[in-house]
Amino acid sequence: MADESKRQLVSEGDFAGWVMAEPAENFNGLVGPYYYRQDAAGKVEVAFKAEKRHLNGGGTVHGGCLLTLADTSLFIFALPHLDGGGAVTVQLDSQFQQPGRLDDIIIATGEITRAGKTLVFGRGELKCKDRLLMSFTGILARKSPQGSRDG
Amino acid sequence: MADESKRQLVSEGDFAGWVMAEPAENFNGLVGPYYYRQDAAGKVEVAFKAEKRHLNGGGTVHGGCLLTLADTSLFIFALPHLDGGGAVTVQLDSQFQQPGRLDDIIIATGEITRAGKTLVFGRGELKCKDRLLMSFTGILARKSPQGSRDG
Amino acid sequence: MADESKRQLVSEGDFAGWVMAEPAENFNGLVGPYYYRQDAAGKVEVAFKAEKRHLNGGGTVHGGCLLTLADTSLFIFALPHLDGGGAVTVQLDSQFQQPGRLDDIIIATGEITRAGKTLVFGRGELKCKDRLLMSFTGILARKSPQGSRDG
Amino acid sequence: MADESKRQLVSEGDFAGWVMAEPAENFNGLVGPYYYRQDAAGKVEVAFKAEKRHLNGGGTVHGGCLLTLADTSLFIFALPHLDGGGAVTVQLDSQFQQPGRLDDIIIATGEITRAGKTLVFGRGELKCKDRLLMSFTGILARKSPQGSRDG
Repeated sequence: MADESKRQLVSEGDFAGWVMAEPAENFNGLVGPYYYRQDAAGKVEVAFKAEKRHLNGGGTVHGGCLLTLADTSLFIFALPHLDGGGAVTVQLDSQFQQPGRLDDIIIATGEITRAGKTLVFGRGELKCKDRLLMSFTGILARKSPQGSRDG
Repeated sequence: MADESKRQLVSEGDFAGWVMAEPAENFNGLVGPYYYRQDAAGKVEVAFKAEKRHLNGGGTVHGGCLLTLADTSLFIFALPHLDGGGAVTVQLDSQFQQPGRLDDIIIATGEITRAGKTLVFGRGELKCKDRLLMSFTGILARKSPQGSRDG
Repeated sequence: MADESKRQLVSEGDFAGWVMAEPAENFNGLVGPYYYRQDAAGKVEVAFKAEKRHLNGGGTVHGGCLLTLADTSLFIFALPHLDGGGAVTVQLDSQFQQPGRLDDIIIATGEITRAGKTLVFGRGELKCKDRLLMSFTGILARKSPQGSRDG
Repeated sequence: MADESKRQLVSEGDFAGWVMAEPAENFNGLVGPYYYRQDAAGKVEVAFKAEKRHLNGGGTVHGGCLLTLADTSLFIFALPHLDGGGAVTVQLDSQFQQPGRLDDIIIATGEITRAGKTLVFGRGELKCKDRLLMSFTGILARKSPQGSRDG
């Protein structure tokens, strides 16, 4: 999720021009920081830079680290469709196509393909430059007023 | 991955009787520690305890955190089939069925359903006691001698 | 779906002891017939026999044919949880582990892992004897009173 | 699969301008006919028209029927990457976003996102005009010279 309230524009470094969400004391704070930017068409990108702490024992970016970005991004992509209400991931499928490496700037892009009354469908990919690391599809369920996932 | 070399038996607390992998300076070290145990039949379980740092903005365990355990577990389940060779995840699908909560002891169990010459198929679930949080299926590809994922 | 009204007990042949749904003029009628049986614990199995018309150009059972059985079975497994209401598949994931062959008796087994207020989660596998052909997971959405999928 | 050898250009009707593969005595012959066309950029589309025999008991196109088109299309999309060798589907994931209806012209489009030495990754969607029915992702494994799936 990306409900961090404090955001700041980055002025230098790898993410100059991106907005950084001030890390909260939660899983995105642990794994991130994540960076956000929006193109002219309003399409949002979410990114992070792969550090040693993101790698697996084989020296490439841990699948769980890529999946965390995918899950977070899917929620970000869905935000404009949630009308201020919450949502939870109910399904996420992913294909790992090439490994992520140390120091890679990994960027998630994607789209919501259908926003229904109860379910929101989306898809996206994680890339480092032109190298496709992972594609994913997922489904979110809007939270009921009672806040339960699927009561 | 779970190539941490140092392991120690836990003698007290929530994970008494489990083995803890001494956290390495990698993603499992960041997200874990993870705990392992093996039943009489040799079936391995992988577990962690949900702390505040594992939660999303909604106060439940972040999907990426559950996916990290799933991906790690799939690899652990596959180890006996890898004959000392490596493997990389090529696909992971997950269904989030109920949310994980703060202080939940979340345990992954599963099985390898087919170990072929190039691909290893598995499945599993994450539970807190009898509560099913997530089911997952995945495919690993054995690493070629050159160490490439899928050259 | 499996709303065929006429069912008959098969007394001989490969499916002796199974119940056959009289083929309706729909997709299951085209691809089937499908056969059903229930064990003492109430667990349902769904089966068909692979004929030439079920094969792909490579001489093995077409993936779509296996997926049709998976989708149909998921619905059958869910029936006791639907309380007479309808449901539609919203997601299906499948791993093809070994090919189906001509004359294989292919049997689907599985379970509903969670039946929530709006979503029903399940999983299963297709086997020919002890040979695992495919594993699958899926999500159904209960139909709203208006009969819409996801309005 | 789509190895039907005889193809003919359709001159009238819903599929005027498309190429029809003469139905073989296999699953695509049973479920099809399927129609193919290629745009100026070489991108292939695969289509069929939903008839009564493609519907489920609820009166919409059976999930298995859509999945059959998805699986077939994935293979068609992969053909230029297979260099005359074969391939088998090892994984297919699908999200059903809106139902298909009787008489719908349902068209599959998609792309191969990575063609590696052993695995080929792809994705696509099924649409009726602008209505997205299903999105899918999948993985094919190249057949080894011995013709085994994952021997």
